[in-house]
Amino acid sequence: MAENHPLELLVQALRRLPGVGVKSAQRMAYHLLQHDREGALHLAQALQHACAEVRHCALCHTFTEDDVCATCRDPRRDHSQLCVVENPADLAAMERTGAYKGLYFVLMGKLSPLDDVGPRDIGLQKLFDRVDAPAGGEAGAEREVREVILATNFTAEGETTAHVIAQGLKARGVNVTRLARGVPVGSELEYVDLGTIAHALVDRR
Amino acid sequence: MAENHPLELLVQALRRLPGVGVKSAQRMAYHLLQHDREGALHLAQALQHACAEVRHCALCHTFTEDDVCATCRDPRRDHSQLCVVENPADLAAMERTGAYKGLYFVLMGKLSPLDDVGPRDIGLQKLFDRVDAPAGGEAGAEREVREVILATNFTAEGETTAHVIAQGLKARGVNVTRLARGVPVGSELEYVDLGTIAHALVDRR
Repeated sequence: MAENHPLELLVQALRRLPGVGVKSAQRMAYHLLQHDREGALHLAQALQHACAEVRHCALCHTFTEDDVCATCRDPRRDHSQLCVVENPADLAAMERTGAYKGLYFVLMGKLSPLDDVGPRDIGLQKLFDRVDAPAGGEAGAEREVREVILATNFTAEGETTAHVIAQGLKARGVNVTRLARGVPVGSELEYVDLGTIAHALVDRR
Repeated sequence: MAENHPLELLVQALRRLPGVGVKSAQRMAYHLLQHDREGALHLAQALQHACAEVRHCALCHTFTEDDVCATCRDPRRDHSQLCVVENPADLAAMERTGAYKGLYFVLMGKLSPLDDVGPRDIGLQKLFDRVDAPAGGEAGAEREVREVILATNFTAEGETTAHVIAQGLKARGVNVTRLARGVPVGSELEYVDLGTIAHALVDRR
């Protein structure tokens, strides 16, 4: 098929989606054109709409339509706690627990030296500035944030990111905590990996 | 997140792609908005362009921008042979072999009673009309198509489709053949499934 054929261009465009190879892209293109052109046009609109409307919250950096997101604006939340997560999906998981009433900071990534992602790429300075911000925005006032809860993933990259952030924040004299490591709810010890059991033993309470 | 949030609408739209669940759709949306907005807008354009431009070839039913596709228009191809495939990807696979110089008919589907896909849904009548068409389009002239090669997939649905088409065409007195079943090139007998070996034995030459 010619390279500038609209179908071929669509397959190429679909391949830019993460996790989509040439076979999946072809299958998607054929499916949309054969069975769901309405869905294709709907997707095109949703892409354009989202690109035009979605920006980052000035305070927590998550995706939002507004300058400051609804969570950061909510006066009923505890503004002295700041939970650091890697991405909006992690924020959504924290929210679904219903166990956290503070604010968030979304890194939109993680430190990953192998992929050439350093502190600047994930805006750590923005996090430090956020933590240093005085209460009510008045210069000279005390810091609003009293505790930073590190909720990056428990992967190698997530742990590295948490470590680097903790170093930076401890130098600022902020109280830094990390989500507890331990045995997941509902699991049988026999099937839990050894590292997890060892951590749960050390952190027993 | 609110249901009418542009990000949530994008996730919903991405879920209409085949093989994409809610987690993949979220990952795609986050990736596009965070790292590849250009790619997102590019995809939106490609979708709209393809929906507007791509139609079905009047003769072989494959996707094309023109009324009749380049393959069907090609005077160097053997117009007396017609190869029936399930979809454009199968057509592309046949073309890549370089071993076939005839024309095609793309079913754009397969008979699948379990999914409620019957002969009308995949346009079998269109195939029969195509086979019956007289040479040069002159009424009363002889049939142009002398041999129909069934190249539907060797799955249960593909075999059923081939069987139904063969029945319909034999009633019309057309020469109907099916791709040979046998041992794939480069394979060791020890690892080939028994059904394939049995077929290869019966069809030995």
